[in-house]
Formats: sequence, C-alpha cells, structure tokens
Amino acid sequence: MARLLITLRYDGTAYHGWQVQPNAVTVQELLQDAVEKVTGVRAGITGCSRTDAGVHAEMFCCALDTDSPLRGDKFASALNFHLPRDIAVYDVREVADEFHPRYHARGKRYVYRIWNGPQRHPVYDRYALHRKGRLDEARLDRAAARYIGTHDFAAFCAAGSDVQDTVRTVRDCRVERQGELVLFSVEADGFLYNMVRIMVGTLLEIADERLAEDAIDAILASGDRGQAGPTAPAKGLCLQQVFYDDKEGG
Amino acid sequence: MARLLITLRYDGTAYHGWQVQPNAVTVQELLQDAVEKVTGVRAGITGCSRTDAGVHAEMFCCALDTDSPLRGDKFASALNFHLPRDIAVYDVREVADEFHPRYHARGKRYVYRIWNGPQRHPVYDRYALHRKGRLDEARLDRAAARYIGTHDFAAFCAAGSDVQDTVRTVRDCRVERQGELVLFSVEADGFLYNMVRIMVGTLLEIADERLAEDAIDAILASGDRGQAGPTAPAKGLCLQQVFYDDKEGG
Repeated sequence: MARLLITLRYDGTAYHGWQVQPNAVTVQELLQDAVEKVTGVRAGITGCSRTDAGVHAEMFCCALDTDSPLRGDKFASALNFHLPRDIAVYDVREVADEFHPRYHARGKRYVYRIWNGPQRHPVYDRYALHRKGRLDEARLDRAAARYIGTHDFAAFCAAGSDVQDTVRTVRDCRVERQGELVLFSVEADGFLYNMVRIMVGTLLEIADERLAEDAIDAILASGDRGQAGPTAPAKGLCLQQVFYDDKEGG
Repeated sequence: MARLLITLRYDGTAYHGWQVQPNAVTVQELLQDAVEKVTGVRAGITGCSRTDAGVHAEMFCCALDTDSPLRGDKFASALNFHLPRDIAVYDVREVADEFHPRYHARGKRYVYRIWNGPQRHPVYDRYALHRKGRLDEARLDRAAARYIGTHDFAAFCAAGSDVQDTVRTVRDCRVERQGELVLFSVEADGFLYNMVRIMVGTLLEIADERLAEDAIDAILASGDRGQAGPTAPAKGLCLQQVFYDDKEGG
C-alpha cells in the first residue's frame, strides 16, 4: 500500500464542488469512480480543501492509498480516460505515508477573475464575474494590499462555519488588469470558508464607493461578517496553486 | 436605412461555423434571429469571412442594414439578451453605406492554440489541439517565418475551393510558448479555405520530423496540396482580429 499525491485541474461549472454530497455530482465522487475503474478498488480520496459549487481549480491536490503499481502519466492517462472532459489529472506521485494534502499544505493561491467589458464574453462567461462599469484597478490594488499580513479574518468567513481559529496570514494580495480582464489574486497560509469570495465582494463595494478605500482595516478589526461585502459569485474563483514543502512531494 | 458594423465574439464549439446552412445551427442564423427579435425585421447579415464548424472568434465583423435607431451598447445588450451565452456582440457602430466587412477588410489575424502538456486540460480542451510530445517552439518559429511574404498558397488551400487567385501576403507569422500552451499566430491580407489549419498541420509534420525545417519553401513552390501537412483540427483555431481602414469604421 502506497500513498499517492494526485494533482488535477477542473472546470467546476458542472459540479457541486469537490466534496462528495448526497444527490449532487462532485469532483471527488467522479475521481473515486475513475480510481475504482482503473484499480478495481473503491477507495476514499482526501482533498486539499473543499471547494464550493462552481469554483474552478487549476491545481487541486488529493491523496489516495492504493496497491496499484501505476504511477505518473500512466496512472494519469488511465484516470483521464474515465473522467469527463472538464476534469483532468496531470500528476500522480508517491508521497510519505503520513502526507496529508490539507494539513501539510503550506499555503494556497486563489485567483478571482472579473470580466470588465461592457458586454459579456462567451468564454469568460464561465470563468469570470461580469462587471460592466470600468473598475479602477489601481485603487482596488491599494485597497487589496490592506488584506496582507496576519489578521483575524472572522469578518471574512461565511456564517455557519465551525472553525475556531480565524487568524490567517495573507502573504500576497493584488489586483491587476489584463485588457478587459481584472484579476484579484491572493496567497495565504490558509483560507476560511468563502474567505476569498467575501474579500472580492468587499473590494467591489469599494469599487462602487459604498465602502471607503481604507474600509478593510476597520472591517478586519470588527470581526463582524455583517461589515464586509457580499460573497462574490463562485464562477470567478479558481484555486490556482497549492504549496507544499518539497520533501513532501508537492 | 443605415449600415451597421456589428462586432462579436463566439465560442464555436457548438456551431457549424458562421454561415447559414440547412439542418445545422450557425452563428449567422442565431444573430439574424436576435436581430429580428430586437428590430422586428428579418434581415440578411454579411460576415467578414466564413469560419468553419468548431472555429472560434475573438473578433468577428459583420454588416446589417436596418432602420433601427439603436446603436452601441444599447443595441449590443439587446442582441446579447437574445443570443446564447457562447455568442456575444460587443460593438455596434454605423458605417458608410458601401462598407463591406469582407471586401474592405485589410487583413486578419488568426491564432491557433496547442495545449502541449502530457495530459489534456479541462478548459483548453475546447480551445486548443492537444499534443503530448514537447514541441520545440523555437524550431517551429523558424519554420513559420518561411510563410512570411507574398506567395502562392495554392498548396495550403483545401481541395474543392473555387478561388482563382491563391496569392496571399503573410505579414507576420510566429510560434511562441506560454507555459504549456504553444501559440501559432498569423496575420495576412487574406486567407484561403482552411489555409491556417493546413499551415499548422504542416508545422506539426515538421515537429514530428516527417518534414524538414525548410520544407515550407518547396511546398509553397509546388502549389500542390498533397505536399503540405494535414488540416489541423478546427477547435484550436480562433479568428483573433480583423483589420479595416479607420475611416471605414473597423
């Protein structure tokens, strides 16, 4: 029995997120189905995070314990043969038996895409929030920098989360424009439930001048979810990268 | 009655190209349907080119003669309301009565995308050809430069085309890598039927060393379609830009 780290990408449009749920199709379930078809054994797979319905992943990591001798592109190709076109495994490697894709992650980077043209875009319609009014990306970038640092992000955590410790360290946070696409990217040691989407929703309140450019400081200090902006729609969010120490295999 | 230049983008995956055909859904037909719903009048729309089934457009231009007083974002929004999500108009402007989107185009730029990773990509699966073996983009870029100039492209024209003059001027042609994405881009005063896809198919023969790096010179000189490579799949191709003289409205 060996523990394998499986890395995949997916377009989350059609899925109710990563984690298996009753009466909903999830990425975890389809990957477990594919593993069963390839290895002949039904096995649990542990993910690096839950992702919400409609959220995408350019890099999602998960762990599988298996007796299969397959590794690397051979295993990836076999899994992809059984997966739908909007999910694709691109790396399979052996890791230490104690490796855990969630607890051992040293951090993650998310990107939130906003299509900032007057009309919707046929491709970004699936991968970006559409905002018609021209965003001032320099102003949003200055506001986003206020997220950087070690803060209590309780105000940026969806109600109903049972997490005890809401302190997280944001290492990098920026807003940049690429033509009519505005990209919010954030790297942290960990994220609370809906944290990135609430960070973006708050920036959009700043864009609309319903909140001041420096409002984030006070919202963080308040610890009050009601002070932050609404949760931005899932389709703009993409888990871009998961970081591990090299020795752990990431 | 005024002539309007309508500019749109589309994801061609679901369509049998631009031009109306019996028993097949095309972009032109859906746009004519949308115009009829907005203006109350069924009218023909003239495109800047045919595009094949499955080909995408980041910029496609077409002309409509209409009595509608709508212009700009108002007309675009009204059309987009009636168009499916994978087609989106983004500009509508009045042009001279004699403007023709095809004959007055001074040139076009196409991009052909190749996803060059060992496993397929869930998003680029719709917008790029998948080639597993690592492509040498520097070698392909040198080969692609041989397309630049005024040549008889008869060898790069699909059989069955009834075009008389097969001489075209390629102004720019290059291959570059962005991570695991390899982009072939070509700008010319005009293109023959399937010309870009045959240019790419020929480069892939060079990549596979079934043709020499300098083979394009001899293929051009031969004028023989049988000497060039196969027609690369449609899904990698995107009409990126159409050029007009400023006075004509492009």
